[in-house]
Amino acid sequence: MRGAVLHAPGDVRFEERDDPKIIDPADAVIRTVATCVCGSDLWDYRGINPVEGPTPFGHEYVGIVEEVGGEVSTLRPGQFVVGSFFASDNTCANCRNGYQTNCLHREFVGAGGCQAERIRIPLADGTLVATPDQPAEEHIPSLLACSDVMGTGWYAAVAAEVGPGDTVAVVGDGAVGLCAVIAAKELGASRIIAMSRHEPRQKLAREFGATDIVAERDEEGVARVKEMTGGIGADRVLECVGTEQSMRQALRSTRPGGNIGFVGVPHGVAVDGTELFYSHVGLRGGPAPVREFLPDLIDRVLTGRIDPGRVFDLTLPLEQVADAYRAMDERRAIKALLKP
Amino acid sequence: MRGAVLHAPGDVRFEERDDPKIIDPADAVIRTVATCVCGSDLWDYRGINPVEGPTPFGHEYVGIVEEVGGEVSTLRPGQFVVGSFFASDNTCANCRNGYQTNCLHREFVGAGGCQAERIRIPLADGTLVATPDQPAEEHIPSLLACSDVMGTGWYAAVAAEVGPGDTVAVVGDGAVGLCAVIAAKELGASRIIAMSRHEPRQKLAREFGATDIVAERDEEGVARVKEMTGGIGADRVLECVGTEQSMRQALRSTRPGGNIGFVGVPHGVAVDGTELFYSHVGLRGGPAPVREFLPDLIDRVLTGRIDPGRVFDLTLPLEQVADAYRAMDERRAIKALLKP
Repeated sequence: MRGAVLHAPGDVRFEERDDPKIIDPADAVIRTVATCVCGSDLWDYRGINPVEGPTPFGHEYVGIVEEVGGEVSTLRPGQFVVGSFFASDNTCANCRNGYQTNCLHREFVGAGGCQAERIRIPLADGTLVATPDQPAEEHIPSLLACSDVMGTGWYAAVAAEVGPGDTVAVVGDGAVGLCAVIAAKELGASRIIAMSRHEPRQKLAREFGATDIVAERDEEGVARVKEMTGGIGADRVLECVGTEQSMRQALRSTRPGGNIGFVGVPHGVAVDGTELFYSHVGLRGGPAPVREFLPDLIDRVLTGRIDPGRVFDLTLPLEQVADAYRAMDERRAIKALLKP
Repeated sequence: MRGAVLHAPGDVRFEERDDPKIIDPADAVIRTVATCVCGSDLWDYRGINPVEGPTPFGHEYVGIVEEVGGEVSTLRPGQFVVGSFFASDNTCANCRNGYQTNCLHREFVGAGGCQAERIRIPLADGTLVATPDQPAEEHIPSLLACSDVMGTGWYAAVAAEVGPGDTVAVVGDGAVGLCAVIAAKELGASRIIAMSRHEPRQKLAREFGATDIVAERDEEGVARVKEMTGGIGADRVLECVGTEQSMRQALRSTRPGGNIGFVGVPHGVAVDGTELFYSHVGLRGGPAPVREFLPDLIDRVLTGRIDPGRVFDLTLPLEQVADAYRAMDERRAIKALLKP
């Protein structure tokens, strides 16, 4: 089969690779129906994370089960499935607590490279969620979004304890930030402030439920949010970038007693203990336990409540994966969907 | 009147000072019934915080109202009152959200020095809570504890979202840590692990509700807590010290999805964003909004549910305040109560 391999910063190739196989009796192998490029992949693509030799690439996927190992009991070939980027047994203590991305037996599905024609999924029973039927073509982008960006935006809102009537600010206008707007709306926020300087993203944020747009950044952005919130800051702030700058902006935009959910993978972030202390702000982050939310999110997609697939503003054949990276790197696309 | 003044590290003097007066019509002046020495005062006493000239000292108090300003409507001379170390209007947005120590008009009561015969209390209506009657002598230590250490231990547990059935670990066996044990028990924790190396404090922790004692610190302490919790860590950890070491110990002792409430005033603490991210731990701290909890805590004291005054293992006349500091500095006393 063929799949994407990162050889060096900026050098993604679509090339022949070994077919994935059942290695463990808990595995499944799926035929990829759609995959995509994640903002977090750009850290590697841009060489900010070191690239140590050729690396199979991508960690978001939906597909059709082709084969299951002898221990897999809940899935059968032919089913359409959505899964998370971390495989989880969904039975250990951390999974039962709702933190499947901290499963005691987790494996990074992306290690095998999901921008490929076929994917091996470890711990298939605990990782994959099958749709009730074969989904309509129009639902596939949104189901794919659930495998990462929608699940991650959802977790940002859950980690920040968004609830009815809250004022929520979202830092970051990438696909995760836009999905976080959806999540805030679904969880009952009455005011949603999207921090964005890019007109097409502002527009999509509004369509997803943002009530206000703030184009300013840093201290000016903080000042704007405070102006809009009686001087105290937003109840909940969803940090969807992962830099020191964005974390500081989030912290200073949150009211005393409010919460930050942070889902941007931190790069060089240190939180000043004294500032956090006197802020009275609650902080929780992490790789989103997408698996926890998948049944609910899939239902919201299939019943038409949410349409996160709209974050894909570029669709390409999988073999043009290198073009997809270039488009996202140059910010010509919010998020690129790839079809084998 | 006379009161304590810190002149230099290790140099506390009890000396003649100006009588406090009503300056603002929202003020009250109280006659001190009891005051005490706080662990956080030791940062100054030891010269870890810089001492810039003679400073009136102390911020914990109970007393009898002597005089009220023209705008004070809920208090009258003769009432027994308990207050917080931060004065708050108790009406602004942050107060209404339950974070009176972030009141938009807060003033540090301790600025005037509460280890004194009389104290000026700004924003008296919002700051002081009167007991229904004159309390019995035996309740005074516990009511005094509510003005800071019990309120702070309570906030640690609330910030960590302690609830019924939780396993809670408490880092720090000072008066706040011991009060945090009381709070965890009152909020329904079923297992309370006190981290303590000092036999008298271990004993008091057990009497307050600790079910387990861990004497090890740092990575060994973390390993012990993990052993006791099926390998994943405690549901809630209450950090009552404020050092980089204690915060790291707290973070690594908490299970994924668990929470830390941190109330030790941070000294040189930076939280590594990447470690916090992958931990999935929620973190909230700050100066405890004692005023929010006072009515409830006073009721628990007067009805005999809690007895936090037992943290006072040394009682001295106020004029011996210097001895009280020495005893706490040398860890001969957990906490010293002072009587004018």
